[in-house]
Amino acid sequence: MGGAERELHGLMQAIGQAARAAAASLAVMTPQQKDAGLLAAAKALRASAPTILAANALDLQDAVHRGTSGSFLDRLRLDGARLEAVAQAVEDIAVLPDPVGRVLAHWTQPNGLMFERVATPLGVIGVIFESRPNVTADAGALCLKSGNAAILRAGSESFRSASAIADAMRTGLQQAGIPGDAIQLVPSKDRAAVGMMLQGLDQNIDVIVPRGGRSLVERVQAEARVPVFAHLEGLCHIYIDRAADLAMAKAIVLNAKLRRTGVCGAAETLLIDRACLASHAQPLVAMLIGVGCEVRGDPAIAALDPRVVPAVEQDWHTEYLDAIISVAVVDGLDGALAHIARYSSHHTDAVITDDKATAERFLREVDSAIVLHNASTQFADGGEFGFGAEIGIATGRMHARGPVGVEQLTSFNYRVRGTGQIRP
Amino acid sequence: MGGAERELHGLMQAIGQAARAAAASLAVMTPQQKDAGLLAAAKALRASAPTILAANALDLQDAVHRGTSGSFLDRLRLDGARLEAVAQAVEDIAVLPDPVGRVLAHWTQPNGLMFERVATPLGVIGVIFESRPNVTADAGALCLKSGNAAILRAGSESFRSASAIADAMRTGLQQAGIPGDAIQLVPSKDRAAVGMMLQGLDQNIDVIVPRGGRSLVERVQAEARVPVFAHLEGLCHIYIDRAADLAMAKAIVLNAKLRRTGVCGAAETLLIDRACLASHAQPLVAMLIGVGCEVRGDPAIAALDPRVVPAVEQDWHTEYLDAIISVAVVDGLDGALAHIARYSSHHTDAVITDDKATAERFLREVDSAIVLHNASTQFADGGEFGFGAEIGIATGRMHARGPVGVEQLTSFNYRVRGTGQIRP
Repeated sequence: MGGAERELHGLMQAIGQAARAAAASLAVMTPQQKDAGLLAAAKALRASAPTILAANALDLQDAVHRGTSGSFLDRLRLDGARLEAVAQAVEDIAVLPDPVGRVLAHWTQPNGLMFERVATPLGVIGVIFESRPNVTADAGALCLKSGNAAILRAGSESFRSASAIADAMRTGLQQAGIPGDAIQLVPSKDRAAVGMMLQGLDQNIDVIVPRGGRSLVERVQAEARVPVFAHLEGLCHIYIDRAADLAMAKAIVLNAKLRRTGVCGAAETLLIDRACLASHAQPLVAMLIGVGCEVRGDPAIAALDPRVVPAVEQDWHTEYLDAIISVAVVDGLDGALAHIARYSSHHTDAVITDDKATAERFLREVDSAIVLHNASTQFADGGEFGFGAEIGIATGRMHARGPVGVEQLTSFNYRVRGTGQIRP
Repeated sequence: MGGAERELHGLMQAIGQAARAAAASLAVMTPQQKDAGLLAAAKALRASAPTILAANALDLQDAVHRGTSGSFLDRLRLDGARLEAVAQAVEDIAVLPDPVGRVLAHWTQPNGLMFERVATPLGVIGVIFESRPNVTADAGALCLKSGNAAILRAGSESFRSASAIADAMRTGLQQAGIPGDAIQLVPSKDRAAVGMMLQGLDQNIDVIVPRGGRSLVERVQAEARVPVFAHLEGLCHIYIDRAADLAMAKAIVLNAKLRRTGVCGAAETLLIDRACLASHAQPLVAMLIGVGCEVRGDPAIAALDPRVVPAVEQDWHTEYLDAIISVAVVDGLDGALAHIARYSSHHTDAVITDDKATAERFLREVDSAIVLHNASTQFADGGEFGFGAEIGIATGRMHARGPVGVEQLTSFNYRVRGTGQIRP
């Protein structure tokens, strides 16, 4: 280890220890204390608006000098209205029900022992994000609400903005009597800091949440020695069954593909039951092409319309995140299930049908975090689930799956009340 | 990679793929199918008794030749009665409620979308164990009941016994129409196979459960690239509060320390409130020494009785698993909480008090998988929790915590039913 790396290592270890200490104190706080802290943080964000916007202007200036693209700049940019929305989001999180202390189950054994399974914080959550500076506030607030300390690592592009936001929030927290170390931003842009976080900072990080593009998530999943809440991609399917209402199918496909093409819940592949090829496939394909969506189809679909681009094997594996959709004809529900089992990213898949038995089998047999019947895949979002806010969507099967809101940021323990019971 | 290692690698990859395929078929089986498989496996265990006992005799013979100790031989030994108990345990697991398909939560959003959170299998569970051959049947049955495929790796000492048990169970499963690959035993004694399992067999193992001594668990926790359900140790504390009923305290301490000293729920450290040093400490210490338990005490405890061994710092860190207990005087509940926060293994800790407020604070503030009020720490057991059986006890905060029974071997997904909803 060189001198600079040793210094960074010491810094990161200290951050981990401070987070663990803050987590111990957060774990026993009342809901009122945490909520007061969040409201104070929101207030401090508003009070620090000039500082935050000035820092953001410098980040933007650098990005422009680097020749960064328009959508990137847009993700990075803050203004008065956006900063107000950031503060408002923190207040929205404050008014959610407290996820800690919920009694998840309770029962009494024949010997009189009374068991409770009670939600507790997870501990310390590491969040690694890229360009959106608002993640600092969102993720920090979600962690605090769930009684967890947060270690946030911003991308170098949004580093000044994220630092100014974190500073404001810490000031607010401290004014409300909450340790500022509840929300720490890694003060170094060195990429080695990410590697150290992925190793868990000497068991002082309990879970990592990456917020960013595919290459970030891939690195995190490959290197992390601690659990990760993430999804690599959302390769979402819609299966149009022979018993689908055509008007509903058209409305849902249009929404699922094109409402926003860049979100993980956007549909990427349409599967059409061979039994309704004549009645449903042609109008669906015509509709999509008509609104400017490229259709890449298998031979049966390509035969319907000369504007269809022939699909190749890679298309079934591709999350386009664009106005492109792959379309395959399948042999009924079994064909759809087989296609999804082979290509799905286990994120979100939907069936459109008026046949209840088909719908129930699809819901039961598709092994994805979210499965929908007669609804758009773009509902794959914690807000739409009623979770208030989400820190991300997970496709792993452990602990959290689907949208990760404040409830999913908790663990639990067993509290057992006796009257002197001993074990025979 | 040498030739032998390459061959083993190919074998282990094939085991992983076969397990994943079996898991996909288990995931959609009815409870009746799985239960019929378990009953057939139990029947096959009984029918194969001569083969299993002959295999066990060879394992025992080798162990004796190696000069292995009495308690090890006892863990390894099977006889007719023990094998009947193994078969009975599989039948007991068959009659548990099915953990898959439970509706864990359900709600409707204002737009009419109906959400369900439903329990699903985890996938493929790797179980690495040492000398007890019955783990093959227990773990295999728990995984199958929860819809998971199991990859079992037996220690070389119990390899023949475990193989015979696994063969019998696979025969039973296949007779009931369940893929035999639902329960696979690694057919190699090469320790490199364990390393490959810890890497996850190309994402074909979802979680690892180590069943064995500390060195096994340490290796698994250090090397595993997949989640682990385990506890390294059970350094369990009992805090005797000033408001403790002395008779109850004596009965619970006696049971918690000495009912069985070798289990993870055995008490290792007794904390006594300074306010009841005179009334409670002396009789508790005298009782323990009187029944042959070594007491290692801090200066205040050592001053009570010349037979007390002075404790050193290492004692507060030690899980004795023997008739030895460390005893410290603490300044009330705050002192007990501080001691436990510093030394606990986050497994199981208990408070003895008649003061409800003290008990509630202890239950709320001690960050352990199991916290008890007025009951013995030896209740730390899935059977005593009413879980029917457990595959182990976990002290991590992710997914499973405390006893890991069939419910904890499940994940979940979201099933959403709509009537054509699209996202605005």
